[in-house]
Amino acid sequence: MPNFDAIDAAIARRLEHNLEELRQLIAHPSVSAEGQGMEACATFVAELLHLRGFKVQLVPSAGFPVVYGVRPGARSAPTLLFYNHYDVQPAGPSELWDSPPFDLTVRDGKAVGRGAMDDKGHIICRLAALDALLEAEGELPCTIKFVIEGDEEGNNVHLPEFVAQHTELLAADACLWEAGGVNHQGVPECYAGMRGIAYFELRVATASRDAHSGLGGSIFPNAAWRLVWALRSLKGPDERILLPGFYNRVRPPTARDLELLAALPEESDDLRNSYGLRGFIKGLTGGVELQREAVFSPTCTICGLTSGYQGPGCMTVLPAQASAKVDFRLVPDQDPAEVLQQLRAHLDAQGFDDIEIIDLGCEAPGRSDPDHPFLRLVADTAEDVYGIRQLIAPMTGGSGPYHAFIHHLGVPIATAGISYPGAQAHAPNEHFRIPDFIAGTRHTARIIARFGSKA
Amino acid sequence: MPNFDAIDAAIARRLEHNLEELRQLIAHPSVSAEGQGMEACATFVAELLHLRGFKVQLVPSAGFPVVYGVRPGARSAPTLLFYNHYDVQPAGPSELWDSPPFDLTVRDGKAVGRGAMDDKGHIICRLAALDALLEAEGELPCTIKFVIEGDEEGNNVHLPEFVAQHTELLAADACLWEAGGVNHQGVPECYAGMRGIAYFELRVATASRDAHSGLGGSIFPNAAWRLVWALRSLKGPDERILLPGFYNRVRPPTARDLELLAALPEESDDLRNSYGLRGFIKGLTGGVELQREAVFSPTCTICGLTSGYQGPGCMTVLPAQASAKVDFRLVPDQDPAEVLQQLRAHLDAQGFDDIEIIDLGCEAPGRSDPDHPFLRLVADTAEDVYGIRQLIAPMTGGSGPYHAFIHHLGVPIATAGISYPGAQAHAPNEHFRIPDFIAGTRHTARIIARFGSKA
Repeated sequence: MPNFDAIDAAIARRLEHNLEELRQLIAHPSVSAEGQGMEACATFVAELLHLRGFKVQLVPSAGFPVVYGVRPGARSAPTLLFYNHYDVQPAGPSELWDSPPFDLTVRDGKAVGRGAMDDKGHIICRLAALDALLEAEGELPCTIKFVIEGDEEGNNVHLPEFVAQHTELLAADACLWEAGGVNHQGVPECYAGMRGIAYFELRVATASRDAHSGLGGSIFPNAAWRLVWALRSLKGPDERILLPGFYNRVRPPTARDLELLAALPEESDDLRNSYGLRGFIKGLTGGVELQREAVFSPTCTICGLTSGYQGPGCMTVLPAQASAKVDFRLVPDQDPAEVLQQLRAHLDAQGFDDIEIIDLGCEAPGRSDPDHPFLRLVADTAEDVYGIRQLIAPMTGGSGPYHAFIHHLGVPIATAGISYPGAQAHAPNEHFRIPDFIAGTRHTARIIARFGSKA
Repeated sequence: MPNFDAIDAAIARRLEHNLEELRQLIAHPSVSAEGQGMEACATFVAELLHLRGFKVQLVPSAGFPVVYGVRPGARSAPTLLFYNHYDVQPAGPSELWDSPPFDLTVRDGKAVGRGAMDDKGHIICRLAALDALLEAEGELPCTIKFVIEGDEEGNNVHLPEFVAQHTELLAADACLWEAGGVNHQGVPECYAGMRGIAYFELRVATASRDAHSGLGGSIFPNAAWRLVWALRSLKGPDERILLPGFYNRVRPPTARDLELLAALPEESDDLRNSYGLRGFIKGLTGGVELQREAVFSPTCTICGLTSGYQGPGCMTVLPAQASAKVDFRLVPDQDPAEVLQQLRAHLDAQGFDDIEIIDLGCEAPGRSDPDHPFLRLVADTAEDVYGIRQLIAPMTGGSGPYHAFIHHLGVPIATAGISYPGAQAHAPNEHFRIPDFIAGTRHTARIIARFGSKA
């Protein structure tokens, strides 16, 4: 067995160096939504891998280049694949940040910057674990592959296609997902599945220009009303989604899923307090019912509405255009392409053939077996670091290219990392806590070591 | 009878002088929505009246000061009241103007500038008519009063209260409204009523901050959905407004109203082409039915919608806040205060007590008798100027403080002026055509002369 004391000592010794690498990585403001500096950031990530002896390629994709790296281990098998992304969310209003978003700032035991957690901190966490293993052991026990994309935060979902086209390059025995960490109680938590997503913009134009509401109010079609009526036809106050056939493929959770959910901490109070909610919908109050609904039911969420006059006071305008952003979160075995068909057919049937649907990105839902040996390995190794076994959530509410790895590569996927619920991903003052970084790096090193020793 | 040849000659001779006054008036950018330079503009308007021998006051109001002026005529009675406003709409993007918006520019027979038509051009038109009468006749045949407000274009409706508080000051026998002119066919057209308005913002907040749609989509209340459902409860695709009691006070048009509507030109093709409409709502195609619906039915118009993410591409956010701007156009005898009560009661009854209603301004509907001798006088005098009798629309679709003058002062109200449908009020390159200015001024002079001679 590897010498974990030596590995942990190396992690501690190299902390400043790895944080300096993270500082340089964050200094590349690789905001995929804006597209500036993406190539430069990809090149820098490639250089970080190259320094560790990886054979690296910047592989073109339908979006930004994908950084691919492979480093053979001491023995021939097995192969562990790391999935990460080098793009970040926009920084948002600078006045909401306590320090410059693209200048990693360590204060009060926290490392603050855009991408500190999501996901540049995780890239460095993986590399720091490799550094420590190499320093303590002189070699890696297995082959490591990285696939680090630049479109995770952006509007374009290219990775599933990329994975489908590069199954040999990416072939592996298991995959460690981009992020992970501890829950509100400080207990490490993993998820074994992600919901899919079908994100659409609904648009309607009823005239070539806005009209005065006094002129047109009684006789002109109104784009905002058309949109409201079309949206209402999708879901009513009872929260039931009204697309015919929408629920047909929904697979309910298994008894094992419910058992795993029951083992998760109660988070209803945290959610209520954190978001200032008066309560949940559907009469939910907490417990397994809330956990189950949160991840095993599909959704139809209005993410945005826009039409007409939105400034202060009043303007008596009858809008010619209106649009909504709508996302459907999908559970196994729902299919985003089928949902698009159902949506079009439903709108047409309801008299809303004037509503245009723009497909802004779809991903299928996907699950790993929560009892797969690799997920058990990840859970077991967590105990050595955190003093408590990792909890496994059978699904998470979010979406990602998870399904593509399962479908095209056949790998089980586990999560582990440096995050915690207060990390403010996608928000100002995104950060991780330094002790979480150390723990996540130790955990990653143990996953690699144990995975290699299993061969 | 007055010498109209001499009056018309004086109007022609004084044209350049009056346009120069208008140039100076427009150079005061009195945008009430922005509030800059309003006092200076009011003072300049007061000076224009003072130069004509008016006794002038700047009367404080709940909004910007009201310019009031009175000039006794040669004999004791009667009194004609002019209602105008010195505030203008914002200029909007300067690149959309062919000349600086606050620098009156005459080109191609058009006088272009913000407020050229609405309403500074009409202030100067009234003054030009008085100038010509004084020059040709040496005196005015009746007492003239001006009430010129500074909040017509703004978000605050203060004039009805002002009128109610100053009934003695404003006492008159008839009122000439702020604007008027010719229709698409060049035929002078007057309106004898205005719809009321009840303009509300509906706001809902479901959380203290936005959530990730993957986290909250299945379990959190969504402000955008709450808003959509609440709006849908107000009106469905059949265009019927669903507030209980909303239609109770609606007075249908009389046979005389329908006769007047039938005499108006068919505008359905113009409207369709001008606004790029595929068609009208409620199965309307044109004719008296369209005319009737356009002005004699109340409306519920969504003027604006805003919630969540509205930028390009997608952001998977569950919005904590949503709002809509909604205006109800009201017909006699609907009451804006009652509509507010109906709206609150309806939302509460439908389970939407979380929807906040913000009152952004209300005005009651009002009508004059289209066959009142004063309106006949205005129509008759038009024939002398335009060669054709003025058409009378029994109502217009827009709203204004019209009702306050009828209710508190008991005056009949007519419209006449310098406008035409292409004047681009509220838009870039607002203008009037010089011949329309001359005709509107001649018409105004005849209205004053005939009104005075009727005493």
